Order: sequence, then structure tokens, then C-alpha cells
Amino acid sequence: MAIAVPKMRFAPPQILAMGYAVMVLIGTVLLMLPISNTTGQSLSLIDAFFTATSAVCVTGLVVVDTGTFFSTFGQMVILLLIQIGGLGFMTMATLFALVFQRRISLRDRLLLQEAMNQGSVEGIVRLIRRVLYYSLAIEAAGALLFAFRLAFDMPFGRALYFGIFHSISFFNNAGFDIFGDFRSLTDYADDPIMNLTAMALIVLGGLGFIVLSDLADFRSKKKLSMHSKVVLATTGFLILLGFVVILIFEWSNAGTLGRFGWGGKFWSAMLQSVTPRTAGINSVDLTALHHSTQFMLLILMFIGASPGSTGGGIKTTTFAVTIGAMIAMMRGREDVVFFRQRLARERILKALTIILLALALVIAVSMVLSATEDHDFIVILFETTSAFGTVGLSLGLTPDLSTFGKVLIALTMFAGRVGLLTLVYALKPKKSPEKFRYPEGKIIIG
Amino acid sequence: MAIAVPKMRFAPPQILAMGYAVMVLIGTVLLMLPISNTTGQSLSLIDAFFTATSAVCVTGLVVVDTGTFFSTFGQMVILLLIQIGGLGFMTMATLFALVFQRRISLRDRLLLQEAMNQGSVEGIVRLIRRVLYYSLAIEAAGALLFAFRLAFDMPFGRALYFGIFHSISFFNNAGFDIFGDFRSLTDYADDPIMNLTAMALIVLGGLGFIVLSDLADFRSKKKLSMHSKVVLATTGFLILLGFVVILIFEWSNAGTLGRFGWGGKFWSAMLQSVTPRTAGINSVDLTALHHSTQFMLLILMFIGASPGSTGGGIKTTTFAVTIGAMIAMMRGREDVVFFRQRLARERILKALTIILLALALVIAVSMVLSATEDHDFIVILFETTSAFGTVGLSLGLTPDLSTFGKVLIALTMFAGRVGLLTLVYALKPKKSPEKFRYPEGKIIIG
Ligand SMILES: [K+]
Ligand SMILES: [K+]
Repeated sequence: MAIAVPKMRFAPPQILAMGYAVMVLIGTVLLMLPISNTTGQSLSLIDAFFTATSAVCVTGLVVVDTGTFFSTFGQMVILLLIQIGGLGFMTMATLFALVFQRRISLRDRLLLQEAMNQGSVEGIVRLIRRVLYYSLAIEAAGALLFAFRLAFDMPFGRALYFGIFHSISFFNNAGFDIFGDFRSLTDYADDPIMNLTAMALIVLGGLGFIVLSDLADFRSKKKLSMHSKVVLATTGFLILLGFVVILIFEWSNAGTLGRFGWGGKFWSAMLQSVTPRTAGINSVDLTALHHSTQFMLLILMFIGASPGSTGGGIKTTTFAVTIGAMIAMMRGREDVVFFRQRLARERILKALTIILLALALVIAVSMVLSATEDHDFIVILFETTSAFGTVGLSLGLTPDLSTFGKVLIALTMFAGRVGLLTLVYALKPKKSPEKFRYPEGKIIIG
Repeated sequence: MAIAVPKMRFAPPQILAMGYAVMVLIGTVLLMLPISNTTGQSLSLIDAFFTATSAVCVTGLVVVDTGTFFSTFGQMVILLLIQIGGLGFMTMATLFALVFQRRISLRDRLLLQEAMNQGSVEGIVRLIRRVLYYSLAIEAAGALLFAFRLAFDMPFGRALYFGIFHSISFFNNAGFDIFGDFRSLTDYADDPIMNLTAMALIVLGGLGFIVLSDLADFRSKKKLSMHSKVVLATTGFLILLGFVVILIFEWSNAGTLGRFGWGGKFWSAMLQSVTPRTAGINSVDLTALHHSTQFMLLILMFIGASPGSTGGGIKTTTFAVTIGAMIAMMRGREDVVFFRQRLARERILKALTIILLALALVIAVSMVLSATEDHDFIVILFETTSAFGTVGLSLGLTPDLSTFGKVLIALTMFAGRVGLLTLVYALKPKKSPEKFRYPEGKIIIG
């Protein structure tokens, strides 16, 4: 079971970044073709570039309405970019975590390889095949459920097309919709089938392949890895927290939950709790939410989905490790322990570093945008976080962006998708050859 | 040189918290007396409580104008609360850092005791006397400089009173002023003497006693501790950064720097860069600043002054250690090295934990306030950060606060002052008796 990763001229994250850049370029050209849109004219370079980036990075921030502006051809281009972008990322992130991480101890790697049955070129091929198989199976089920429900409202052919488009978009946490007029799921705010299907696709896409694979093997193995337990517990906690906060804050807000009965309130609160991490669809008017609710969505967007998934953000595990470190610190414990297993000190520092770097990036971009765009700071912060977390939720800034703003937000999406993974890959403290180490100094904290 | 800290029923931070609470109560009662204000009526309980808390915690957020509303008696009460609150905190924080920190290695403690010549009850008395001596000397110098300049604008007796009040207020980073009508230093925006004196007082008060003491001994010892070097370098860097950003963003803003010549622009940019950490005075209209400038001030307020000083915030060293950790992480280094000395891993985790806990508190309070107060989120976030960092800068929310909002902001000031120190004191990972330690588990970050 030798590890036969072929020698490469470029590190895997560089290859991923180049692949994504090429896809954005091809997508830009295709979306600029007159046949891509319904006006018969050509989409401007910047808007085509923005849309292609948004699709490849499975973000869903849009400068034109996907449902009405783009022709079926244009929509298919976007859908293809989403599918390749989403699955490609999921596959690469999984491979990074399992195969390319040369710093994982041999024991860990062997354990994982045993679980995943890979670690050679054939193993990698098998792994990729399994990712594709899972994804396509879930997407097919989602498409059929959507089509079944939408067939009540439109001809079956169109319902099937809508089903396929939204199933792929939602499973890949891409946030694009073709309901028209930036409507997203607002027409189906209290519909159980639409909501359940959408949430199932989003959550399954956001758990990450490693957890899905672990869950699929649960029946035979009767146990889950610590990673899967942490992901599931954190995901459940965040969904519940968001649901409760939204219910409390928005219960009687006439612009959002106020106009619904019990059922509508339940489904809207659930969907709006699930979607910031990091699907990016919505069934209520986000601009009508209380500022405090918007800020909570912003925090959920920042946290995002789980590693090796189609979703973005700093990831649930990074968040869980940080919370665990804070609690351990406050209780005076030296180890962070999850499910009777402790975390390596190195992983904790990595999590804290990622959070603070991500925060620094989001703040820096927001500050620059607040100088160039004429909107409230909270709106700019929301949109920047949405781009960084590849979420796609919007308080309306994106269609108003200046050309500079569009380029910056597009780059932020790219950084949030490819950059964060590269960072994770790069963040491995090398034990310096301990010939010389500086003496320990004293500094007073706080 | 035995360490003879007497056994106490309460831990030092609890004593500090109780002392502060008692001072707030006494202050509240005194400020409610009719002779404390110029209207002849009694200040409401909530406003007296808010003002007393703001003075004791040397914050400077005010619900009524200090210069016009309070009588000389009331102003003297406030000044006394500031002086006791500021010096008391500076002394206690220094003692905590040097004497009560039982977890510091014996070697470190002996080194520090040698430097400070304390570590016994007499040593502590000597240390406190030295803190008082330094502080009063600096305050006296500041008062004379202010009085000298203000005597051109008002009778000498009044100029001296103003000099004493503002020198004490500024050295203690308290942010209270009696210029009237919430004017702060706006009338002296381009005055070199007022600006230089104010900035000198703020910066000296914010460096912390350990650094002041180290600087005073520099002529004889010819070297500084790593702590002092980090504090001085970080302070200098932050002042310069703020200065440059304010100059760039505000150069042609008619509401702020735009109306000044070169001199006024220079002094205003300098003062507004110095004051968020955490003096809380201002010489330009903060509400007229660009949103991006306001947000940078918010970040500076969050960072704050240095440990063992009169200022608040998470402290310059916490910030420096965090940046150092991020850079080390990104460069793949295992050690964080400042001035050829490395930091203990424990200190790094402590710094990161403090930053994230502080962030969580500020965000949580802001979210609650955004539900109860009818203002923009950025305004609420600014005011909450100002309270937490005991800064006192305001975008105008404080006078409009609801009673609930006033209580919450007052508690936030208290938490920012006493709570953070308590937290720092409490955050010492105890090496658990290693009879049993959980096995290391694997989790994927990012
Ligand atoms: K998305
Ligand atoms: K202050």
C-alpha cells in the first residue's frame, strides 16, 4: 500500500487555481456570446467575468437575473460551470485532506487510507469515482423531487429542467436560481416539499464527502470518525441556533415571517438558517430582516460548510476547534477534547490562524469597498462576507457595484474558494532544524 | 527574597471588581445630589449610574454634557472617580502582571522582581508608590502646559482648573472633557501645544507602567525588555498606520480634514490616530468621517493600549502576538520570535483566545442592542466597541440610548475594564495531572 503520488511541477493548490482560472475564462467567453442571453446583444466583459466567476466558485452573487436575462444556452453554461466547479472543488479538497497532506503522520494516513481504500493512483481514481457517484445520485433524487412538485405549476418538461437546474445548483451550494426576477425560493416559502428537498440537498452537499462516505459505511461499521461526529454536531447546532434566533427576531416582522402561519414561519426560519452555510438561496426578503438577524446570517456565512464539501466559509470544524479552544482555555484545561479524543496543538493554532486571516481579509476588502461604493457599511460587509464564503446571499449591493467593485468581489470569491484551501494546504509549521532556537522571552498579554 | 503575597479569601480580580463596584455606587449617589449639577434638580438614577461607571472605568461615554450639565462639585466627583479608577487599575494590572501571576516560572519572576525590586509586602508598597509618583509627575506637567496655553483664552484660574481636569482625564485615558456641548478638542484641532500635550499624556498613560519604568531605567541599563520593545514598536506602528489612513481617506472631506491647512490636517490626523487607543477625545466631527475611517477607528479601539496602563482594549501585545502567530504560521515557522526571543506556545493561545472572546462579546452585545436601539448597525457596533475598549468615542448613540441600552453599555464598560483583566488572570492552562490523557484524534481544518 505504497503512496504513489506522482511528482508534479506545481503543488496541487496551484493546479487547482489554474484550472479554476481557465474555467472562468472559458465561461466568460461563452457567456458573452449573443446566444447566451435573451436580449440578442452581448453581455459586457465585466458582467460575463463576474457571472462566470460566481458560477465556477459556486457563489451565486449575480449582476443580472439568471432566470430572465440568460437564454437556455446561457443557463446551461452556468450549470456546467457550477457542476464542474463544485464537484471539482469537492474532489480536490477531499484529495488534499486525505492524500496530498504529506505532513499527516503515517499512522493517520494509513488509517484514512484503510477507510477510504485509496493511497495509490488507482485509489485516487476510485475515490474520485465514488465522489461522482454519490453526487450524481443525490442530484438525481433532488431533481426528481423538485420536478414532481413543480409539475403542478408548469409543464412537465419545464418542471424537469427546473428540477435538474436547481438540484445541481443547491447540492453544489451554488445559489443560482432561474425562477426569475431575483426571486429565488420566495414563491415557495411555505411549501414543505420544495423546502425539504432544498434543505436536504444543501446540507448533504455541505457535509463534505468524507462525512457522507462515513455515514454510508455506518450500517456496516457501526461507528463514525471523530471528524464526522464534530461536523454533524456542529452542523446540527448551527442550524438549530439559526432557526431559533430567526424565529425570535422575525416572528412578528411583517416584511418577513410575520405574514406566514405556523407552517410558513417554521419552513422560512429553517431555510434561512440552513442557506447561509453556504447555499445562498432565500425564501424571504433579506433586506426586510432586522439588522441583528442580518448580522447573524453574516456570522453563519463566515462559518460556512464543512471541509471537503461544495460549500465555502472557514468551515464548521475550524469554528468548532476555536470554540473548543476557548472553552478549554477558560476552564484551565490544556487539551481540547472532542468525543474523547484530543486535538493536536498544531491544529488548534491552524484553526485560530485561519479565522483571523479570513476576518482580516473580509474587513480589508469591506474597507476598500466602503471607499468606492456608496452603500451602508453593513451592506458592504454582508456582500463581502457572502463573496468570501461563496454564499451568494445579497442585500442588493452586487447589481449596483462599480466595475472596480465587481472585480474586487470576483477576486474575493476566488480567494474564498481557492485561496482558503491553498492556505489550509500551506499552513503546516515545519519543525525547523533545531540547531538553533531563540530563548523564550516574556510578554504580558491582555 | 521570598515571595510573601498574603493569603486572601478572594482572588485579586474579585477584590478589584468589588472595589470598582463600590466606587460606582458611591459615585452614583454623589452625582445624583442636586449640588452636582447646574440645573438644581436631581440627575436620574440611570444617568448618574451610567456617568459614574463611565468615569470609574475611564471610558468617557456620556449621556449628558460634562462641561455644561455638571457643577464644579459634580466635575470634581467625576475627576476623582477617574483618578482613582485609572490609577487603581494601572496599579492592580501591574501587580497582577508582576506579583500575583503564580504561574510565571520562578526564573521569570525573580528576574522581574530584581528589575522592579519588589516581591515582598514592602516591595509592593514601593511599586505602588512608584506608580503614583510617575503618574502625578506626568499629570502635573500636562496640567501646566494646558494651563499655559488656555490662559490665552480664559482667566488664569479657570485655565488652571481646565488644565488639571484635562491632564488627569487624558493621562488616565478617560476621555471626559469640560469644554462644553460635547465639543471635546474640536476648538483646538490645529493647535500644536494642545495637540502635543494631549497626545503625550495619552500615549504615556497608554504605554503601561512597566514600559514607563523600563524607559526611565534605560539611561542606566542601556537596554529594554522584550515586552517594552514590542509595546513601543506596536504603538508606533499603529499610530503611524492610523495617521496615514486618516490622511488618505479624509484629506478632502469637507466635514473633517478638508477645511484645514497642512498644519491642521497633520494635527487632526495624528490626534484622531492616537485617541482611539483608548483616550476617547476627538478634534474632528466623528460622524462626518467616511465609513471606512470610522471602521478603522473601531479596529484601533478594539486593539487599545498596552498592558498595565490606564487604557483599555485587548492590548497592543495581544495584537502583536496574534499578528506574529499568523505570520509564523504562514511562513511555516514553529516559533513566534520577537527581537530574538521566542514566545511560549501558551501565551500565543492565550492571545488568540482573548481576541476571539472579546470579539464574541462585542458582537453579542451589538446584536442585542440592534434589537433594542433604533440606529444603524455600524453606529451600534462602534459604540459597543468604544464601551468595551473603555474608549469613549461616540457616533452619537449614547445620549439616545434606552434605559436598557444604558445598563447594557455600562455593563460592557465594566466587563471591558475589570472582566478582561480577570479573564487574563484566569486564563492559565493548568497542566492536568497526567494520569490520563485522551488519545489524539484527527480533524480536518478549513
Ligand atoms: K453559494
Ligand atoms: K477612555
